[in-house]
Amino acid sequence: MLDRPGRLESLIRDLGDVPVVTDPLRVRKKSRDFFWYSPVLNEQLKDVAGDVLVEARNEQDVIATAAACARHGVPLTVRGGGTGNYGQCVPLQGGVVLDMMAFDTIEWHRGDVVRAAPGIRLNKLDEALRPNGWESRMHPSTKRTASLGGFIAGGSGGVGSVTWGGLVEPGNITAARVVTVEPEPRIIELRADAAQKINRAYGTTGIITALEMPLAAAYRWIDVVVAFDSIAEALRCGEAVAHADGVAKKLVTPIGAPLPRWFTPLKDAAPEGASLLLCMIAEGSLEPFRDIVRTRGGRITHEQLTAEEPGQVPLYEYTWNHTTLQVLKTDRSYTYLQLLYPAANAVETALKMIEKFGDELMPHFEFIRFGGRMTMSGLPVLRYESRERLWEIIALYEANGVMVANPHVVTLEDGSRHKRANADQLGFKREVDPAGLLNPGKMRSYVPVTVS
Amino acid sequence: MLDRPGRLESLIRDLGDVPVVTDPLRVRKKSRDFFWYSPVLNEQLKDVAGDVLVEARNEQDVIATAAACARHGVPLTVRGGGTGNYGQCVPLQGGVVLDMMAFDTIEWHRGDVVRAAPGIRLNKLDEALRPNGWESRMHPSTKRTASLGGFIAGGSGGVGSVTWGGLVEPGNITAARVVTVEPEPRIIELRADAAQKINRAYGTTGIITALEMPLAAAYRWIDVVVAFDSIAEALRCGEAVAHADGVAKKLVTPIGAPLPRWFTPLKDAAPEGASLLLCMIAEGSLEPFRDIVRTRGGRITHEQLTAEEPGQVPLYEYTWNHTTLQVLKTDRSYTYLQLLYPAANAVETALKMIEKFGDELMPHFEFIRFGGRMTMSGLPVLRYESRERLWEIIALYEANGVMVANPHVVTLEDGSRHKRANADQLGFKREVDPAGLLNPGKMRSYVPVTVS
Repeated sequence: MLDRPGRLESLIRDLGDVPVVTDPLRVRKKSRDFFWYSPVLNEQLKDVAGDVLVEARNEQDVIATAAACARHGVPLTVRGGGTGNYGQCVPLQGGVVLDMMAFDTIEWHRGDVVRAAPGIRLNKLDEALRPNGWESRMHPSTKRTASLGGFIAGGSGGVGSVTWGGLVEPGNITAARVVTVEPEPRIIELRADAAQKINRAYGTTGIITALEMPLAAAYRWIDVVVAFDSIAEALRCGEAVAHADGVAKKLVTPIGAPLPRWFTPLKDAAPEGASLLLCMIAEGSLEPFRDIVRTRGGRITHEQLTAEEPGQVPLYEYTWNHTTLQVLKTDRSYTYLQLLYPAANAVETALKMIEKFGDELMPHFEFIRFGGRMTMSGLPVLRYESRERLWEIIALYEANGVMVANPHVVTLEDGSRHKRANADQLGFKREVDPAGLLNPGKMRSYVPVTVS
Repeated sequence: MLDRPGRLESLIRDLGDVPVVTDPLRVRKKSRDFFWYSPVLNEQLKDVAGDVLVEARNEQDVIATAAACARHGVPLTVRGGGTGNYGQCVPLQGGVVLDMMAFDTIEWHRGDVVRAAPGIRLNKLDEALRPNGWESRMHPSTKRTASLGGFIAGGSGGVGSVTWGGLVEPGNITAARVVTVEPEPRIIELRADAAQKINRAYGTTGIITALEMPLAAAYRWIDVVVAFDSIAEALRCGEAVAHADGVAKKLVTPIGAPLPRWFTPLKDAAPEGASLLLCMIAEGSLEPFRDIVRTRGGRITHEQLTAEEPGQVPLYEYTWNHTTLQVLKTDRSYTYLQLLYPAANAVETALKMIEKFGDELMPHFEFIRFGGRMTMSGLPVLRYESRERLWEIIALYEANGVMVANPHVVTLEDGSRHKRANADQLGFKREVDPAGLLNPGKMRSYVPVTVS
């Protein structure tokens, strides 16, 4: 086999008219995501880059790239909007970075299902759907820059998960079409349960070329900020809203003081010292929502139709991983964690942990449905002291029954709640990427098939 | 004061051009509902009738009737489609029966909220909404004959409650407008929490003249029947479907053998000896639904778009209180109960009770959300032996942590899970019906205000 530069040259030749970028600055830019949220990952990933950038426009380009990488033994890392937080699309072993953002067509929309190409931006998808009365069930806080494929391959849920649960719940991914990485790539359609083989696999289990997604009613959503004297009140009110099945909602986010101090543009809605509850509520459910808030000591400080147009900042850009970003924008000495509270006593556990850590953590929670039950995700923001202390904090959470999806590691296994690879994904990888060329280093349990 | 006949004559005179029916046969027909589901109630109510039937066409007619009844001290019982099962609209003390079915306009529909008159039939309401992409969040199995006002005043939930909970959950009734029963009737608008004052009060707390209701997305619903070898399997599969937050659903109904024997038109879908799971699933969620069924030993025996047109029988007419009706249609020696299982161990408790009662009960469950948690309602069908045995069975359920809303009593208090009147409703009644003329005998805790 040729050495890496030789192989890359042959590969580029094989790609024919598929757009290729070799300018190192542009390649490097497209080899990064928001891994710098983590000082640990920043150290590990800051100098990593691919060798060449390929810009797929359609499935034919994807097939050509997959075939060329397989033939020349070159690693292939697929990339969407680059909005991940743990280096999901960082090419640890270099090679080809396959940018999917130009592959962004909607194949069809029929009632409560849409089928689209992976590169479509999530806000563009919803813009097309909403005039027909439908929208995506859930999206990350990066909706305005993230791609559909990147969300499914690198994300887990987000705005909307308080109603629909995460992408992992049965029914939240209708189907996926993937291209295998082989000299003669095959196309595989994965439907229903089988589609989970590509969910949050960081693009290690085939190259997604189409996604069929179930939809939800396009309510007129209202951004609401509620101020409370304590995080305990914000949590209990959030719990009441989350459990009010008659209140149509998309977001229920308690955030503890002093974190809102970093929400500069929301200053008028965030009185000094207040803890907040950020919500998206269907217009027709506002009145019962206000009743819940009123009886639980909340003061509504902001109420406005969700506005996602350029120049506007939708409230969801203060939630999920954007909460962390609001702090990091001005002070990179902070970092964060990703937690899942036990459904049976989520709020009580959260209050206990707040007491335990005191000022070391700034509390941030997201109510979500998980396995058919309402619970909370936790994304506390903390001042980074050392890797050792971070690992101690994680151990303390785990010792108290809180599951941790560690966002300071790059492998699927270490970042999962169960610290192991999904068995289906591991098995499927053997079928679609026998040589282990897809995003190598991310699924560390996988041992490539030795070609005899 | 005049005697009853004299007062009625004066009352009719006062009504002017409001349509009045005095033909005893027609009045008697409109004084009844499905109370004959209960042998106990049948004995008690079979000879009860109003004195006169008033057919309201609009709010003016309602106000005229309320004023006349107040002035002449005549009881006033409001009636919708007459589809209740516990004599909700049976005029225990005679007087005026106020039929609202001709008062059936839609005031407006804006996005996820509709405002309509109480007499509109629920299927007519949905027919108007669905072309705009919306529909009622929930409806009783009597959707094709029941009125909106009757559902809110006499019902509790139904098809759709597996997603939205019951009418009692905050947000499931947006607002209600009521007319008071006084010589000079007033109009009161009840919004959000306050609207609960008329929910399931059997028309004792004011006469509803408008309802504002929150809506849900009008999915294309698919009726699905799944056959199992045992009720335990049907329950466990139902539980998995109910907890699958990504599966959009409107109905999840486990029914144990031998009950499906009475579902004659569904014979081909109900193999002899099988227990069934009857579901309504959004078309886009069918594939993940089938995956759940397949891994839990179910065989899909029927799958068809829900058809509600005349000549069709939608699957929901085999669920909720229609399940009971399918049996009673051919054999009135049966009756039923209404139970609420504890959310923490609903299926386990159900299986324990099935074992305890053996052949005495035919199991029927409805998965519903209640207080933000998934649980089950139970509507077992049982051969009626005696009132004493019925009361024993109820006591046995209660001793095992199952709440009973006794459908063999006519008062709100005895029929509620908590055996007492809702405090808000009791207090509100003093404001809107001081003399206690509205459906007298149903809210037994109420002591009329003595006019000095």
